[in-house]
Amino acid sequence: MKILIPGMDGYIGWALALKQLKIGNQVCGIDNFSRRRNVEEMGSYSALPILEMKERLKFLRETFGEKVSFFQGDLLDVDFTNDIVSKVKPDVIVHLAEQPSAPYSMIDQEHNIYTQKNNVIGTLNLLHSVQKHVPKAHLIKLGTMGEYGYDPGLDIPEGFFEVEFRGKKATVPFPKIAGSWYHWTKVHDSNNIMFACKLWNLKSTDIMQGIVYGTKTEQTIDENYHTRFDFDEAFGTSMNRFCAQAVIGYPLTIHGSGGQTRGFLALSDSIQCISLLIDNPPDDGEYRVVNQFDEQYSVLEIAKKIQNIGNQKGLNVEIKSKENPRLESEKHYYNADHEKLKNLGFKRTREIDDEIGIMIEHLLPYKDRIEERKEVIVKNIKWQK
Amino acid sequence: MKILIPGMDGYIGWALALKQLKIGNQVCGIDNFSRRRNVEEMGSYSALPILEMKERLKFLRETFGEKVSFFQGDLLDVDFTNDIVSKVKPDVIVHLAEQPSAPYSMIDQEHNIYTQKNNVIGTLNLLHSVQKHVPKAHLIKLGTMGEYGYDPGLDIPEGFFEVEFRGKKATVPFPKIAGSWYHWTKVHDSNNIMFACKLWNLKSTDIMQGIVYGTKTEQTIDENYHTRFDFDEAFGTSMNRFCAQAVIGYPLTIHGSGGQTRGFLALSDSIQCISLLIDNPPDDGEYRVVNQFDEQYSVLEIAKKIQNIGNQKGLNVEIKSKENPRLESEKHYYNADHEKLKNLGFKRTREIDDEIGIMIEHLLPYKDRIEERKEVIVKNIKWQK
Repeated sequence: MKILIPGMDGYIGWALALKQLKIGNQVCGIDNFSRRRNVEEMGSYSALPILEMKERLKFLRETFGEKVSFFQGDLLDVDFTNDIVSKVKPDVIVHLAEQPSAPYSMIDQEHNIYTQKNNVIGTLNLLHSVQKHVPKAHLIKLGTMGEYGYDPGLDIPEGFFEVEFRGKKATVPFPKIAGSWYHWTKVHDSNNIMFACKLWNLKSTDIMQGIVYGTKTEQTIDENYHTRFDFDEAFGTSMNRFCAQAVIGYPLTIHGSGGQTRGFLALSDSIQCISLLIDNPPDDGEYRVVNQFDEQYSVLEIAKKIQNIGNQKGLNVEIKSKENPRLESEKHYYNADHEKLKNLGFKRTREIDDEIGIMIEHLLPYKDRIEERKEVIVKNIKWQK
Repeated sequence: MKILIPGMDGYIGWALALKQLKIGNQVCGIDNFSRRRNVEEMGSYSALPILEMKERLKFLRETFGEKVSFFQGDLLDVDFTNDIVSKVKPDVIVHLAEQPSAPYSMIDQEHNIYTQKNNVIGTLNLLHSVQKHVPKAHLIKLGTMGEYGYDPGLDIPEGFFEVEFRGKKATVPFPKIAGSWYHWTKVHDSNNIMFACKLWNLKSTDIMQGIVYGTKTEQTIDENYHTRFDFDEAFGTSMNRFCAQAVIGYPLTIHGSGGQTRGFLALSDSIQCISLLIDNPPDDGEYRVVNQFDEQYSVLEIAKKIQNIGNQKGLNVEIKSKENPRLESEKHYYNADHEKLKNLGFKRTREIDDEIGIMIEHLLPYKDRIEERKEVIVKNIKWQK
């Protein structure tokens, strides 16, 4: 199969590209390197050193030859996007080319508008290219569990649910009540994709993904193949940030009481899930929503796990509460379905505690790099100024 | 009160400005004149001749002096928008500055992207300006009943409904299942506005408006004060198009069986409703949704009304079915609430049959203008190419 990966230079994109090449598929990447620039803007970098794309490709070509290709460009560029999609004619597109940070989108008007344009218009351009050039391709799009919001007061199904209202029943989209400008762009995308599937008979899987953590997959162990690992407030996910904090003896900073419950998923399992979705496309015209996470935990539970495991390794890990800069419930009912991927064969690679141990061990040699930029871990980007 | 009206040059914007001036409020208009350009792009113009804004303002200033002001510019221009909002410091903003045509958004990729950028980013810029400069102002935003979709299989409440799912109850946004790229931009806007109200404690009324019809209000009778009246496929609403067709002896073109049921509202009543909302703002932080229409009819029922009334006036009005270019149900359950505006005091100005008679009489002297551009009435902009 030929897999097009917009966002191939990112945390998941790079690991996914390696996995797909490993199993024998052709991979064509696209990236505009905005993630590198935006992390730099935050004053940070990847804790694990990563190579420039030119060098990354050099190593890949040694092993995979013509099976890998890459184009630098932007989905906002209509001609570029049409050009690549029409030339590559992918069987599957895994669209990861979005601005992925909630705090980044909340910095100010400029960052909000940038996020909305980049995500919503980029996805629309891609949809139009698919319709024109590869209407039978399977578009896999990375959304977030945050689209549903974390406190809807109801169980969260996978995309749709049956409701009864004044004596009539219908199956309708589950309400979306996102909590940041970034999260709303993912909702707008989902809505646009749902419509495109109906309008043009496209097939798409919209992934409502939980919080991903981890430093590596089987394919990214060697330093030349590292995927990025962010630990700054904007681009580091909570679990990744906590591990970076543990390694440098910086207290794990939970927001408020840390009672925010979320779905979590290891990086290797995110790649496993996406690969399962690639192998099991929906029908023509189907808009399929999957909730992609392994287990639910509160942020405090995660912090305590990292504290325990870090302390077992001789680190002195503290947990410290700070004022919550976000607009979110710190104690809430949370129970989200996640059966579809299990039904496709998803099984976790390893237990979360083991993965945390691996992360800490992997990060320890890079302690100085994290230490050097430790001021980026807590920048206090406030939702309400 | 000081009312800012982005989109003042449009069909509703102009009529609303005149009404608000008439009752003694200050009005500041904004427009980039995109409606005039976009209608021209469709090969059309307003059936009722309208003046250029410069001349419109000359007449207004004779009567209202300093109470009226106007700025040419675009909400996509961040500095312009911030500048006007901070200088004018409006009490109320009635945001009508959107690309309002579903068919126009469906022409091709370029028209879709234009619509999404114009509407979504324009509204976001306005929200940021309100937050920065007039956080206590009441933002009234024009949405559409089409945000809910026309065949959800459930009664349609005003914005929110209580659902029970697996034994838990919650009040959540009613699902949005729009049927064109344009309609989806209104959904994206609604979602962004709902979030802004929560985030910044803004107050906003989001109007889910039905199909507006009519050639005039009490304030737009004189030719110098005409508001525009579009009859082309993209910018003319179904009822307005039918009346234009009746006047020139062009069969009323219903799509398919004409069983599409919609909410309808006369222009003068749209202005009445917006004026009621201006006078009755929601609370700080409240995101209020109102369904703004008077009566529900199927498109065929509307066509028959116009046929009967036209024939009574000696016109020879035929109804002709054409292939439906849209993606929509032609027979469906439809029952939408519209109580909130009645509770604020809304009463229809006159019966729909009387308004149709007035429209036809008003259009008859401009028969030649419509005749000259009759090829724009059916352009056959298809949803699915």
